[in-house]
Amino acid sequence: MNATARVTPPLDEVKGLTTPSLLLDEARMLQNSQRLRRHLDGLGVALRPHLKTVKSVDAARRLLTGGDGPAAVSTLKEAEEFAKAGVRDILYAVGIGPAKLPRVLEIRRSGCDLTIILDSLEQARAVAQASRDSGDAIPVLIEIDSDGHRSGLDPDSPDLVGIGRVLEEGGAQLRGVMTHAGESYHAVGPEALTRFAERERDAAVAAALTLRDAGLSTPVVSVGSTPTAHFARDLSGVTEVRAGVYPFFDLVMAGIGVCGLDDIAISVLTAVIGHQQEQGWIMIDAGWMALSRDRGTASQAVDQGYGVVCDINGEVIPDLIVTATSQEHGVISLREGSSAKLPELPIGTLLRILPNHACATASQFDQYEVIPVGPGGMQQWPRFRGW
Amino acid sequence: MNATARVTPPLDEVKGLTTPSLLLDEARMLQNSQRLRRHLDGLGVALRPHLKTVKSVDAARRLLTGGDGPAAVSTLKEAEEFAKAGVRDILYAVGIGPAKLPRVLEIRRSGCDLTIILDSLEQARAVAQASRDSGDAIPVLIEIDSDGHRSGLDPDSPDLVGIGRVLEEGGAQLRGVMTHAGESYHAVGPEALTRFAERERDAAVAAALTLRDAGLSTPVVSVGSTPTAHFARDLSGVTEVRAGVYPFFDLVMAGIGVCGLDDIAISVLTAVIGHQQEQGWIMIDAGWMALSRDRGTASQAVDQGYGVVCDINGEVIPDLIVTATSQEHGVISLREGSSAKLPELPIGTLLRILPNHACATASQFDQYEVIPVGPGGMQQWPRFRGW
Repeated sequence: MNATARVTPPLDEVKGLTTPSLLLDEARMLQNSQRLRRHLDGLGVALRPHLKTVKSVDAARRLLTGGDGPAAVSTLKEAEEFAKAGVRDILYAVGIGPAKLPRVLEIRRSGCDLTIILDSLEQARAVAQASRDSGDAIPVLIEIDSDGHRSGLDPDSPDLVGIGRVLEEGGAQLRGVMTHAGESYHAVGPEALTRFAERERDAAVAAALTLRDAGLSTPVVSVGSTPTAHFARDLSGVTEVRAGVYPFFDLVMAGIGVCGLDDIAISVLTAVIGHQQEQGWIMIDAGWMALSRDRGTASQAVDQGYGVVCDINGEVIPDLIVTATSQEHGVISLREGSSAKLPELPIGTLLRILPNHACATASQFDQYEVIPVGPGGMQQWPRFRGW
Repeated sequence: MNATARVTPPLDEVKGLTTPSLLLDEARMLQNSQRLRRHLDGLGVALRPHLKTVKSVDAARRLLTGGDGPAAVSTLKEAEEFAKAGVRDILYAVGIGPAKLPRVLEIRRSGCDLTIILDSLEQARAVAQASRDSGDAIPVLIEIDSDGHRSGLDPDSPDLVGIGRVLEEGGAQLRGVMTHAGESYHAVGPEALTRFAERERDAAVAAALTLRDAGLSTPVVSVGSTPTAHFARDLSGVTEVRAGVYPFFDLVMAGIGVCGLDDIAISVLTAVIGHQQEQGWIMIDAGWMALSRDRGTASQAVDQGYGVVCDINGEVIPDLIVTATSQEHGVISLREGSSAKLPELPIGTLLRILPNHACATASQFDQYEVIPVGPGGMQQWPRFRGW
């Protein structure tokens, strides 16, 4: 679907990079972003990109509505960095710990409309107290559990309305509900993913109706995961969709049918540093420190090891995957059962590895080496990390 | 074995840390370091700490002989950082890629005696060429494969002497041989680990003898992994032992009997952020971004999930482990089959998680929060990363 977007990497510049490096194909990233925007525009729902994947102001500018539009984050460090860069509407989408409330208030004082989430009376009381103490009515989405994945209240939990009341009557601001169908990462194919999207929507909309029936204002109904965002067919009642990994995609998303290998926008540049011919192994200088320990495809129909091997132009080399890693060593070999011939890749050959999980692999690097969509040479986009 | 070394953490300071944070118990680190030094002193062999685990100048000062003695590293970035900090004898213990030779020469020009490793004629020719071109005879250890783990020449490979000749006659400097018994991580108990240490020694010593018989000077015989370093009983013919994870230890090392849980010097401080009572889950704000995706104990007799849960003082809570992670969420629950009762841990409770793999978990953080052995408050020791 993105053959037209393929940009030939500036080979001389790629060859000058340290290995391992993290390559980002901007054209693919923009095309992935446009694909999801078009889909959600068609459903009449806003997109709130989850910036935990990119952790980069340069990438965020290209993904957010108007360059500074609504965003979600997974850490207060991200909230601080993106607020500083001018993003004015941020959802911190991890259940709030009371010790983090002073930083939340500080970010809000800087002019950013930061919203938090919670799923217990205990947290609601702490947030109400912090709101009263500071004179700032902290906006809150109540987290709903739509699939037994991790956090959140059951949509018919008796605590739901109680939490809403503690917030509203206690001095905070109930802004709505949110859910994340994390289990959708284990569903495969359009039908299964569409059913997951319905389940996610139904849970969030049901919870919002319960709150509204109790007289509690619930303007926001926020849902989303990359798989459900792409396969939702009807989002009636939903006001916004969150997704994180969609601008980059990865082998896990390809394995469940959300994208193709040609859509994956990041790869790890690595060099061949050795051979164990009798074993059929080619050694590279990208180990788990570069690729991450993520083995997300291990439970999928096709196990991609620690990543799929491409040549320097990003063309997949048939049946070649990273089968083992140490801290700074990767072992490339043919997929088990393959009848392909191990290619001759002399010492120094540059390769690109497609990652299992873009969030995990990107987090191992401090910057993207960007193959830009426009004219001019490669760009460096810094990443940040930490909490 | 280190009950005497236990230092009560300065609780007020720990409570003021952001969660997640990386705690380091300096007393345990020093005790672990002394344990290995004593053992190797008894065998009459030098220790070359592998600094890939700590990636910290402050930690290195406490681990190296005289504070700046011999070290091993896994990246040229580490070599650059430690050379800048005054370390004058560094082994870059990953097979050299020819594109990295200009940086090797640059580090050597800065006054650091940097040695590299290789296992092919192709690499030897490139190193000889770079040595001639620069007028600097780059010192080299030939990597030997003692256990089929990853890189290295078979000790009786016909290429061994050829590589030595290419180096010596080509203008580089053959300094010796090295091997790493990485498969020892899968051996369990003193007998099996001692046998691995013998195998590691035998392979390296045999290769050195072959080179010497061919008239090639081979002063250095370098072996090591944390498991074999601790269980070697006779290292005749070996001149130095490398080990990396020993100052911190981790659950993988505890699982094969190299240390006890009480020896593990690093832990991730985290806070409770939610509960799913029906599931028996306690949610924490340390996910895989903090703990890493490493599941090194998954193949051991006792699978510790993503880590063992301790209270804020570092006392293990029976049968409680991190059973699942998302990027910034961890799920704590009782070990499968446990008859223990899930403890009541209210929102905000601080816990410490012992890691599967210290190298991987530490690499997720930019600094250590150090519980110091001496008087005074906590210290921050910066870590670096990258290549």
